Amino acid sequence: MKKMINNSRLIPFFHPRRVAIVGASEQGMYPAGIIRNLLEHGFKGEIYPVNPRRKQVFGLTCYSDITQVPIPPDLAIVIVPRTAVLPILQQVAQVGTPAAIVITAGFAEADEEGRRLQKEMARLSRETNLAIVGPNCAGVANVPEHFIATRLPISPRTGSVTLLSQSGALMMALYGVFADYHVGINKLLSLGNQVDVTISEALEYSVMDPRTRVIAMFVEGVRNGPRFVQALRAAREAKKPVVLVKSGRTEQGRRAAATHTAALASSGQGFDAVCQQFGAIRVDDVMELVHSVRMFNQIGQNIARGRLAVVTQSGGLGSLTADLADLAGLSLPPLSSQVEKRLRQLPYIASVGVLGNPTDVRGAAVIGSATRKTLAPFMEDPETDVVLLLLAKPAVREEDVTTAQAIIHVAKTYTKPLIVVWVGLRYPPSAPDRPLAHRMLVEAGVPLFEQPGDAIRSLARVVHYYRRYPEESQHNITAHTTFMDSFRHRGARARRDPSHPIPFVKAARILERYNIPLAAYQWAPRPEDVPHAAEVLGFPVALKLISPTLTHKSDAGLVRLGLKTVEEVRKTATYMWAQARGHSVEGFLVQRMVEPGVETLVGVFQDPQFGPMVMLGPGGTLVELINDTVIRLPPLTHQQARAMIEEVRILSRLLHGYRNYPPSNLDALADLLVRVSHLAVAEEIVSLDLNPVIVNAQEAVVVDVRMFF
Amino acid sequence: MKKMINNSRLIPFFHPRRVAIVGASEQGMYPAGIIRNLLEHGFKGEIYPVNPRRKQVFGLTCYSDITQVPIPPDLAIVIVPRTAVLPILQQVAQVGTPAAIVITAGFAEADEEGRRLQKEMARLSRETNLAIVGPNCAGVANVPEHFIATRLPISPRTGSVTLLSQSGALMMALYGVFADYHVGINKLLSLGNQVDVTISEALEYSVMDPRTRVIAMFVEGVRNGPRFVQALRAAREAKKPVVLVKSGRTEQGRRAAATHTAALASSGQGFDAVCQQFGAIRVDDVMELVHSVRMFNQIGQNIARGRLAVVTQSGGLGSLTADLADLAGLSLPPLSSQVEKRLRQLPYIASVGVLGNPTDVRGAAVIGSATRKTLAPFMEDPETDVVLLLLAKPAVREEDVTTAQAIIHVAKTYTKPLIVVWVGLRYPPSAPDRPLAHRMLVEAGVPLFEQPGDAIRSLARVVHYYRRYPEESQHNITAHTTFMDSFRHRGARARRDPSHPIPFVKAARILERYNIPLAAYQWAPRPEDVPHAAEVLGFPVALKLISPTLTHKSDAGLVRLGLKTVEEVRKTATYMWAQARGHSVEGFLVQRMVEPGVETLVGVFQDPQFGPMVMLGPGGTLVELINDTVIRLPPLTHQQARAMIEEVRILSRLLHGYRNYPPSNLDALADLLVRVSHLAVAEEIVSLDLNPVIVNAQEAVVVDVRMFF
Repeated sequence: MKKMINNSRLIPFFHPRRVAIVGASEQGMYPAGIIRNLLEHGFKGEIYPVNPRRKQVFGLTCYSDITQVPIPPDLAIVIVPRTAVLPILQQVAQVGTPAAIVITAGFAEADEEGRRLQKEMARLSRETNLAIVGPNCAGVANVPEHFIATRLPISPRTGSVTLLSQSGALMMALYGVFADYHVGINKLLSLGNQVDVTISEALEYSVMDPRTRVIAMFVEGVRNGPRFVQALRAAREAKKPVVLVKSGRTEQGRRAAATHTAALASSGQGFDAVCQQFGAIRVDDVMELVHSVRMFNQIGQNIARGRLAVVTQSGGLGSLTADLADLAGLSLPPLSSQVEKRLRQLPYIASVGVLGNPTDVRGAAVIGSATRKTLAPFMEDPETDVVLLLLAKPAVREEDVTTAQAIIHVAKTYTKPLIVVWVGLRYPPSAPDRPLAHRMLVEAGVPLFEQPGDAIRSLARVVHYYRRYPEESQHNITAHTTFMDSFRHRGARARRDPSHPIPFVKAARILERYNIPLAAYQWAPRPEDVPHAAEVLGFPVALKLISPTLTHKSDAGLVRLGLKTVEEVRKTATYMWAQARGHSVEGFLVQRMVEPGVETLVGVFQDPQFGPMVMLGPGGTLVELINDTVIRLPPLTHQQARAMIEEVRILSRLLHGYRNYPPSNLDALADLLVRVSHLAVAEEIVSLDLNPVIVNAQEAVVVDVRMFF
Repeated sequence: MKKMINNSRLIPFFHPRRVAIVGASEQGMYPAGIIRNLLEHGFKGEIYPVNPRRKQVFGLTCYSDITQVPIPPDLAIVIVPRTAVLPILQQVAQVGTPAAIVITAGFAEADEEGRRLQKEMARLSRETNLAIVGPNCAGVANVPEHFIATRLPISPRTGSVTLLSQSGALMMALYGVFADYHVGINKLLSLGNQVDVTISEALEYSVMDPRTRVIAMFVEGVRNGPRFVQALRAAREAKKPVVLVKSGRTEQGRRAAATHTAALASSGQGFDAVCQQFGAIRVDDVMELVHSVRMFNQIGQNIARGRLAVVTQSGGLGSLTADLADLAGLSLPPLSSQVEKRLRQLPYIASVGVLGNPTDVRGAAVIGSATRKTLAPFMEDPETDVVLLLLAKPAVREEDVTTAQAIIHVAKTYTKPLIVVWVGLRYPPSAPDRPLAHRMLVEAGVPLFEQPGDAIRSLARVVHYYRRYPEESQHNITAHTTFMDSFRHRGARARRDPSHPIPFVKAARILERYNIPLAAYQWAPRPEDVPHAAEVLGFPVALKLISPTLTHKSDAGLVRLGLKTVEEVRKTATYMWAQARGHSVEGFLVQRMVEPGVETLVGVFQDPQFGPMVMLGPGGTLVELINDTVIRLPPLTHQQARAMIEEVRILSRLLHGYRNYPPSNLDALADLLVRVSHLAVAEEIVSLDLNPVIVNAQEAVVVDVRMFF
């Protein structure tokens, strides 16, 4: 945790003792809503309403401006027209208040004038050291301390989930959903336009916050990639799951995002790679976020090896659930003999049930108190870590209530998690209220879902999170400190003009500096130099004409392999020279023949948020055809590089030996990836393509290179 | 519709005038539940309880057995212990009752004795012509006719959705969900073990039923594939969408299914291909089924070209929705200039909104009556077919109700569909009842969803369904009549021993019979025959050793291309002969060299349910590596074969010309597929691999063949 900096900055936002509400009134959604919440939820600190046109607000003394407040507040919440915001913030800084939340909208997200005002606000923040959340945000809350500075009319439930959102509307909507599911919240923060405090900083803070156990985020764009990565890394180290939705995954989504958010929309691929590498859980939709957060919150680390036993009332539902488990990467181990033996002693299961995993117990086994006996063998089985009960029932009031009571009794009797999917329970038959059984289960803290996929996908995320943890945490953490340090000193090299390739010979020299193996070569500037170069190298040779404008060399007939004589080499060089007429030609690359192997591509590119990233995928002519690549932040350890190789779906099958491909030297490829990752961190390249890198049983060797500065 | 047969058989199940309930009582979930429902919902026909131990049930005269009932019923519902079921059914058949529903469980799904009893029941049904639904089922309903013969305590809402389910529990649970969403139901049928009436027959009936517009199904396994296909085809022709969940998609799911369902679990791939080909919509989970059915039911064919305009309160939610739309294949057209002009006249949007698609109107624009003015430009835009409104709000009672009223007003003013996603609305802040606004919107028939993905995916299914319709319907219908007829006369050839390959020369002759082009060849039984065969053919030639036990010929060095002289051919043949020592060898295939091209695999296999299927995918050595195949039921028209080629992701890019591959002759490949499809229908083969079929600019030609009888 030593690398974390500056986080004391955020303390006043969550633990203020004295809060000024500038623009206080008894009307208006935000001013009235926030003050009402502070009063009603029992905030223990001082509240200073500020408004020159009022004497009192909700019975509190109102001050004409913040300079009149008797003791300087440690937090100012600003809800005034946008033209008044900057002068107010000046005053806030003047009185020595360290932190301000600007609720007011109409800044960078709105128009030219708004962008100008936000720039000034940023300067003010830098110059005065005033920490600012917002503008254009929905407020903050610290639920256990009764500090609810949002307009939400919802009773907060205290717990250990912290929700950070770049969308104020979604923060409020999700808070409502969480409240309904009885998910306890620790802190809420709406980031708005991030003029100063960013989602990365808020994430850092949440990771260090001892009362936060699960972090949920809605992310639109990340401004400081390395800091975000550092925060994710720290979360992983602290075993605090980060579950997030990020918009802007597709071109269409990014276009939509670019029009409204002031933050640069980061490339989908880079963001995905970072989440994957540092164990953040990216989900696709808001209820997926809710379900995954619920599962982490309710089951936490209590899933051991994730051995799931499925108990179902309906065979069809069981088989559907097995499908969904398979797709989510959860396997259902066979029913243990011990459980089977016990089930055979239950007459209503022995006669009609189908034992297995899923075990189809039939309806009668899960009606009312029978449910307890049905579940006990599974809950007590040492070979089962999690039990999933599947019910599909219409709402039959009395029957459902006794079943729910039995389920709650079982859930409370054992420490082993019991998850319930009850299709149709949520839906009231005719009464307007929702069924009592549903409410009972939720209030008792039973993880309850309305379709199997919601339970299975979120459970799979929890299982994979803890399963992956041990081998991941260490090397991620050690490797990346260096990277972060090195990156922090650089600037926006990603935004440079990328169209500046460097000559082959220079690129080759850079590879040599990092001990990246390049097939032995001789350089021949003109056709007449080629035969001599080939003789020096020894036959057979490969011959390539190198031109910055002819990128698909092999398609153009400018690559020839296995040339065996001086004469063959001379004729080929002359032919290529003629073929390339009209193009700028660097020269000829005469290369020793590499034993055939798997052609891979190893690349480096600059992500606008996260800086250099290393890519591995299929190489050669299929590179653009098969979309099968894995991306990682450099630098890589050997172990990480090996893991990366395993993740490239098709390629890794080839590398492990497929039909007439013998197994390749994976360690050699991993070494090469590690060295490329060092190059990526240390050199200010814009992009690098090593394509192909031929990997055979002996070696991994670069055959061609294109590097852009 | 002429091909439909026998469907009058199902009439008594849905339109009975006299129903006997055998095993009637005032206790027991089923007996009491069904009689109570018939009475309470106002069934107009006669109800005859049958039970020797009672005189009256719920005030109705009870008969000691069915022979005592004054007029023979046209439907008997049987709820007695399993040992009593067969004698009862005998009586039912005796009195001339044409139809029976067996609710009782404990048959093929349970144990050996149950399987035996079910077999007897099947024989009884065949011999007496008694139509039987079940056993092990949950009943039937015809809602508009007040005939509710299930134990559901739910008020039915009349409409045009028919729900068919192999799982009784899910049928009841889904019915509850539909009722809650105010989706009107026409008919319900729980199929159970399908001893006689199958889901295919029920589907046929629903397609012909004029009161059914949308068909929802939960399928575990299909018994008579061709009949199922025929029913899907008829549904497509009638433009009645079929939305289904089927379990058993993965190995794990099939294993689970195999343990509990009496029907053979059909192969996931074949089932998917059939759905795809005949326009059935297969979804992955139960709420996905509900949402898609709701969308078809509420929006129906009213979506024109599917041009979607997204109006959002939150930029982040808009961008997330654009992502999800992209993934679902829905593109968002640019905002029309007319709408833009009108929005600029609305001050609260002009000042802070971001116009585009999505248009981010900001919160104020969608609070209360402002919502009407905000939506009007979109609803009136001739370039927009569907409007999606995105809200993310916590439940704020008064405000939400006025907003909901405004939305309902807009929805009722225009014929254009308005879809609403309101994140957080469903969740009551503290009161136990669900928010009034939610109930108002659902009751007004506004399609309401709680996360964007649910709306987007189901809308995409509707749009694609109607977009694909015109070009699909015709050739599907004409081509398949023949296929069905030819198939019906065959038996279970799929279940034969598949390990019987036929010799190359015989396979080649079968290909010739269907004019499937095979590269010119000469056959040489022994090495000494090879040189002469090569001379007859003319050099250069390809040489292959053919052995039924050496399947990966090229890996084993038993394929050599471009042999140029008699000497080369002789030496190679001798070498191969030695290599194959210990294997059974058919002989040598000497073949003319085919111009290089894209290597494809064209195959035929037998699906256990659907019979022969034609497959197209990448060929050569990559066949097992890249999972990129498309499957179709034969026979194929040329147009269908062309469509099939376009669907193979990677392969179709190669075929259209990629880098040094010139565009291939797609018509030649399509012709070949058509001919193979004829072969597949007419010949009783178990499987066929044409691999590779080389497709170049001139031709599509088979280079190697393996055929199993």
